[in-house]
Amino acid sequence: MSTRFFGAPVKRNEDRKLLTGQALFIDDVELPDMLHVAFLRSQVAHARLKQIDVSRARQRPGVVAVYVAEDYGDYWQPGPLLVQPPPIPGSTFNPRTQVPLARDKVRYVGEPLAVVVAESRYLAEDALDDIDVELETLPAVVDIEQALTSSSVPVHDDLGSNVAAHVHQVKGDYRKAAANAQIILKRRFRYEHGISSPIETRGVVAHWNARGQQMTIWDTTQAPVFIRNGLAAMLGLGERQVRVIAPFVGGGFGPKIMMFYPEEVGLPWISMRLNRPVKWIEDRLEHFVATTHERGQIHDAEIALAADGRILGVKDVFLHDTGAYNTYGLTVPINSQCTLLGPYVIPAYDSTFTAVFTNLPIVTPYRGAGRQHGVFVIERLLDLAARELGIDRAEIRRRNLIPPDAFPYNNQIIFQDFAPLSYDSGNYEPVLAKALDAIGYQRFLKEEQPKFREEGRCVGIGVACYVEGTGIGPYEGAKVQVQANGKVNVATGIGTQGQGHFTSFAQIVADQLGVDPSDVDIVTGDTDQFYWGAGTFASRGAVVAGNAVSEASAAVRRKALKLAADAFECAEEDLVLADGKVSIAGIPGKFIRLGELAQRANPMRGAVRPGTEPGLESTQYFGPPSGATANGVHAAIVEIDPLTLELKVLKYVVVHDCGTVINPMILEGQIHGGVAQGIGNAFFEKLAFDDQGQLLNASLADYLLPTALDVPRMELDHTVTPSPLNPLGIKGAGEAGAIPVGAVFAQAIEDALQLTSRKVELLEIPLSPSRLFELTRQEDA
Amino acid sequence: MSTRFFGAPVKRNEDRKLLTGQALFIDDVELPDMLHVAFLRSQVAHARLKQIDVSRARQRPGVVAVYVAEDYGDYWQPGPLLVQPPPIPGSTFNPRTQVPLARDKVRYVGEPLAVVVAESRYLAEDALDDIDVELETLPAVVDIEQALTSSSVPVHDDLGSNVAAHVHQVKGDYRKAAANAQIILKRRFRYEHGISSPIETRGVVAHWNARGQQMTIWDTTQAPVFIRNGLAAMLGLGERQVRVIAPFVGGGFGPKIMMFYPEEVGLPWISMRLNRPVKWIEDRLEHFVATTHERGQIHDAEIALAADGRILGVKDVFLHDTGAYNTYGLTVPINSQCTLLGPYVIPAYDSTFTAVFTNLPIVTPYRGAGRQHGVFVIERLLDLAARELGIDRAEIRRRNLIPPDAFPYNNQIIFQDFAPLSYDSGNYEPVLAKALDAIGYQRFLKEEQPKFREEGRCVGIGVACYVEGTGIGPYEGAKVQVQANGKVNVATGIGTQGQGHFTSFAQIVADQLGVDPSDVDIVTGDTDQFYWGAGTFASRGAVVAGNAVSEASAAVRRKALKLAADAFECAEEDLVLADGKVSIAGIPGKFIRLGELAQRANPMRGAVRPGTEPGLESTQYFGPPSGATANGVHAAIVEIDPLTLELKVLKYVVVHDCGTVINPMILEGQIHGGVAQGIGNAFFEKLAFDDQGQLLNASLADYLLPTALDVPRMELDHTVTPSPLNPLGIKGAGEAGAIPVGAVFAQAIEDALQLTSRKVELLEIPLSPSRLFELTRQEDA
Repeated sequence: MSTRFFGAPVKRNEDRKLLTGQALFIDDVELPDMLHVAFLRSQVAHARLKQIDVSRARQRPGVVAVYVAEDYGDYWQPGPLLVQPPPIPGSTFNPRTQVPLARDKVRYVGEPLAVVVAESRYLAEDALDDIDVELETLPAVVDIEQALTSSSVPVHDDLGSNVAAHVHQVKGDYRKAAANAQIILKRRFRYEHGISSPIETRGVVAHWNARGQQMTIWDTTQAPVFIRNGLAAMLGLGERQVRVIAPFVGGGFGPKIMMFYPEEVGLPWISMRLNRPVKWIEDRLEHFVATTHERGQIHDAEIALAADGRILGVKDVFLHDTGAYNTYGLTVPINSQCTLLGPYVIPAYDSTFTAVFTNLPIVTPYRGAGRQHGVFVIERLLDLAARELGIDRAEIRRRNLIPPDAFPYNNQIIFQDFAPLSYDSGNYEPVLAKALDAIGYQRFLKEEQPKFREEGRCVGIGVACYVEGTGIGPYEGAKVQVQANGKVNVATGIGTQGQGHFTSFAQIVADQLGVDPSDVDIVTGDTDQFYWGAGTFASRGAVVAGNAVSEASAAVRRKALKLAADAFECAEEDLVLADGKVSIAGIPGKFIRLGELAQRANPMRGAVRPGTEPGLESTQYFGPPSGATANGVHAAIVEIDPLTLELKVLKYVVVHDCGTVINPMILEGQIHGGVAQGIGNAFFEKLAFDDQGQLLNASLADYLLPTALDVPRMELDHTVTPSPLNPLGIKGAGEAGAIPVGAVFAQAIEDALQLTSRKVELLEIPLSPSRLFELTRQEDA
Repeated sequence: MSTRFFGAPVKRNEDRKLLTGQALFIDDVELPDMLHVAFLRSQVAHARLKQIDVSRARQRPGVVAVYVAEDYGDYWQPGPLLVQPPPIPGSTFNPRTQVPLARDKVRYVGEPLAVVVAESRYLAEDALDDIDVELETLPAVVDIEQALTSSSVPVHDDLGSNVAAHVHQVKGDYRKAAANAQIILKRRFRYEHGISSPIETRGVVAHWNARGQQMTIWDTTQAPVFIRNGLAAMLGLGERQVRVIAPFVGGGFGPKIMMFYPEEVGLPWISMRLNRPVKWIEDRLEHFVATTHERGQIHDAEIALAADGRILGVKDVFLHDTGAYNTYGLTVPINSQCTLLGPYVIPAYDSTFTAVFTNLPIVTPYRGAGRQHGVFVIERLLDLAARELGIDRAEIRRRNLIPPDAFPYNNQIIFQDFAPLSYDSGNYEPVLAKALDAIGYQRFLKEEQPKFREEGRCVGIGVACYVEGTGIGPYEGAKVQVQANGKVNVATGIGTQGQGHFTSFAQIVADQLGVDPSDVDIVTGDTDQFYWGAGTFASRGAVVAGNAVSEASAAVRRKALKLAADAFECAEEDLVLADGKVSIAGIPGKFIRLGELAQRANPMRGAVRPGTEPGLESTQYFGPPSGATANGVHAAIVEIDPLTLELKVLKYVVVHDCGTVINPMILEGQIHGGVAQGIGNAFFEKLAFDDQGQLLNASLADYLLPTALDVPRMELDHTVTPSPLNPLGIKGAGEAGAIPVGAVFAQAIEDALQLTSRKVELLEIPLSPSRLFELTRQEDA
């Protein structure tokens, strides 16, 4: 097998389709007799629902149906599949599943109350105004600290409190560690994440074919197989009667994996009920409340260190805002809890979180998925410790890195996949060294920064490390099939939201089968084309599906060589698979094309012998024993305008180890996008709720995303420590770019503005110019 | 495993859909923007094509396009897949493939010349009148004997003669056999078959999705996988880009397996060209010329016998009308050649056929597929011999039967699957005995017939034997999958045309998995649901696909027991699979449902371990080493009105051995339908061509099909000699009913009218009252 394409910056197969407008997105799906759907959403965050009168709406011309919770009944009760209590002794977990249409109570602004089905979306939206809702408003639970006080109204009446979950995980003995410490530092940190703002909002088209008893659903979901299975159960159908197609999707980033959104649950039911196809495309305003967020956590964290800067222990108690329902489970706070440990030897760790119900939209993972919060806490603690102990910020990190001979490194606590958090492999120090070198760390501090300061310019440097758990199970599969024209078809169960699957998977196949990546067609996210799989999340696509693709193409390779050896009556060892054909080494002109082998593998006469099967194809599954851990270091030099407090990134460096790299160009794109979202998170994006739970900036005019002008050119570099947990040695890279950005920027801004000497500590994200102004004015005041 | 359902007359799963009008047939496919197609067909049988002017037609409002052969170009040239020369030394085979639109020459009445695409079928048909065709008429080649004379014009100019094929097969030494014979009888036999007249004519809908680069074709074909593969090659697509769906089809009977019909080739190309879906549904008039026929053979056959009636040898030279093209190959005449040997020990056989091109529609298999012709010849020869040697007609058959200890019985010559004709198993004498017993053979001849004759009634008896090669390879496959709701889904590659696959396959699964057959959903004939397979022909569905279904469900059974054993931590031997659940024997209430096992087989967390795969499912293929041979005896008592020569069947008996029987009710239906078509063939149906190749009776008013009033109640009985060539022991039964009917009726009519004493021999089929009148008047003249 050659490695001609694996590792090469092959141009993307999918770009021709995307750039010429031939890629199918949900809103491109047009079906005859299709109806359109609009949702009446709650305008208040917390209220008892007295009555909904839809009679006027039902009479509006063009309206076909209006449904409220009573109409739905309980068909959706089999409910979400992901909510499982974590296997952590002593944990509390109070699952409260979102309902597809509110009954009895509304719990956040945007919660669907009723659904109008009409001949057009315009008519449907107009009819929303005809619905009369009678509510008894309740005090909104917005602040997660207040939510836990006895004066707070419970979001879920039957719970009696707003505790959604309580989890305590321990490694070592923090009390003992603290007792031995030279210093103990304790701070309160607030980390707010935001919304993913994909270029394409969510959408669902459902089409019930009564004659065929078949449901087809086009869905922007990241997990078509789970959606298929869940909806089959809800609708009383077999899984084979439900086909979920996640076509090209304009960005996923996590929120598109929620199971199940009210719209996903409702539209198929409506289509069955009305026997017509129905479509709903989320508009941007809806997206701000109807698609899940990540949001805030408040950490009370302390670190215990020896005099030389070695970490003896960390203790952290944090609150996690889970929103009105915890449909998705505990992935986000468990990730925060686990990722706080970073690349460091932390002998004692005592971490407790309380997930809190609020009257705000539901929180589920968004790129990074809670990891940012944990990284921010540990990295800021190390910055504080460095200053306190008089150690260089980079040096204190270096001293605490897990040494390369300590892998696999078991962090003992339970990870998001409910398995113990074990780092599979890593070599952290070279990553840090490369990053410091690339950013010019020493030179900056010794030569450049003093000069800037002389000039009155506020320029600072930041550096932060992280470890990211990636590539978790359970499994993915792939079917690789050579066609008679020599092209190779690959189908896999994961969906695609821009990750470059059509290229990176093609590269894996191309090397195995001696074809060009452009001769490999990839099909993703269509449950009829590949039946099994989990989905695209947790930076797992390349790790899990990539290895399944590799194993399937290796099996096809073996079949091809065997077929050719039979045809030529020679030994397989004498054969060369390249350029789409199998040749006999040393005999020019003696070859057989792959496509011809595919035809021979499907005989017209004779028999398929026992133990063989027709076709030059193979289906293989890959399930990693546990997740792989990528790691990296980001470093930045930033300049702050001391008057406006506007920020300019002078240099941004990412050094990253995600194991073996399939396509460095695609990987760079992933990192670029991640950093861009990280910058948005660090500076621009804050979901501003008032005390009534109203989102005050629910438009892209108010909720500012970083533009191309705000995202700096980045210098990227890589080291490669292959994962021992999968044959290709891959570790995931999808979320990495977004994770440490807040920590880097807080540190660099502090440095630029010399805030530490002014007794100002940046212990929160996001930091906008106005927030920086507040924080620094605080000092002046 | 229980055998609760295998062998039981389970009611058909598919009937609810069929009877309530929910089954999808091609004409039910309605797509937005669909165009409709009509074909301009040649009105003359043989002509040079000078010019086709479609300019007026193109201008007709509503006409979207008109194409002639030049527009098509050569895209279809990869051509049919089935045409292979038989591996018989010394054979001549001149393949001439049908063209999708005639170029240079037209070769039969009905051959497509041009195609009109319009907004409706009405508009398209109207526009046919606007097309001006300039032809130079040639003498039509209609008579197969004349076709071979030097005065005949060649149908294919480049061939120089009308020999489509010439095949000589030999077993033993006929010359020596003849030299030792007591008697040698020689006659000329003519056997005409007809058209299958399915309740649903053919149809094609093609839909090119340019954005997805996907072609979907709904086709009445019996072989969706072959159509998929062939069209992919023609259209320059990968097989994965082409989905062929053969939905419910209203009767197949062989002609729906032709590859490729001009309409099948043309419509997908038109859809790609116009980027719109297109539909064509064959009308009944078109069906008479556009769908393939079976037709006539002329046999000059002689039989050499010993004095005791033992056959020493048979020599046969026959002409086979293959029509204007021999696209399908040599299946029909090879079947005639092979099936002539019947259940008899025939030590010497010398058989030669010449397939002849004529200016008539193409000949391909129609239920029986040439077997009728061979059976008619040998059975009539035995009748003649019996009379000549003074041996009872049944007795001469009995004496020649292959004894039960002679199996496998190798007949040495090459069969339609290009493998040697070997009878796998059989026990022929009990079949004959049962049939004679059931018809009351001895009583009829000794007691009843004399009484009838006294009464002046012309009542006669006939009895005929046959062996049918069935269940040939190459293979079929099946995927069996338990769903979370406990229902079982089965997908297989063959299509369905009324055979009861949805029930008989379900019975096989039901026994293996301990569920009810109504809990098993079968999907057939959709290449996206099951990718590989051959098709529904040669009485092979139950044999080949049935065994694949059985093996796949057995594999699922093993998986279920293993999963349950793991769950219960017990031995698999202690488990009972019944009523949709796995229980522990002797522990009431301790069980796990199949559906729950299916869910457990797709873990949400953890890993799919190496060597395992998600899902409670299995895909298995079955390819028999060679075809299985069914056999049977038909016997009939018929009365002829001596004045009108109308026929009434007083009793009809079928005793049949098709190995193990899955569903006797479905099997009876197959036999009933086959006998009905056999009666049509024997009495009603004759394609009447004039010497210009014009079909004179191309309507159901003129071409008479037997009605319910013409088809008698039948008495059916079975013996079971399992086939050793497949685990289930099945032999095919789809064509059996139709095969010996002509032979039975000729014999019975001769007997009824005492023709032998009048020196009239019935050596041809069909025999209508008017033909009988001619034959008996001949005698009078």
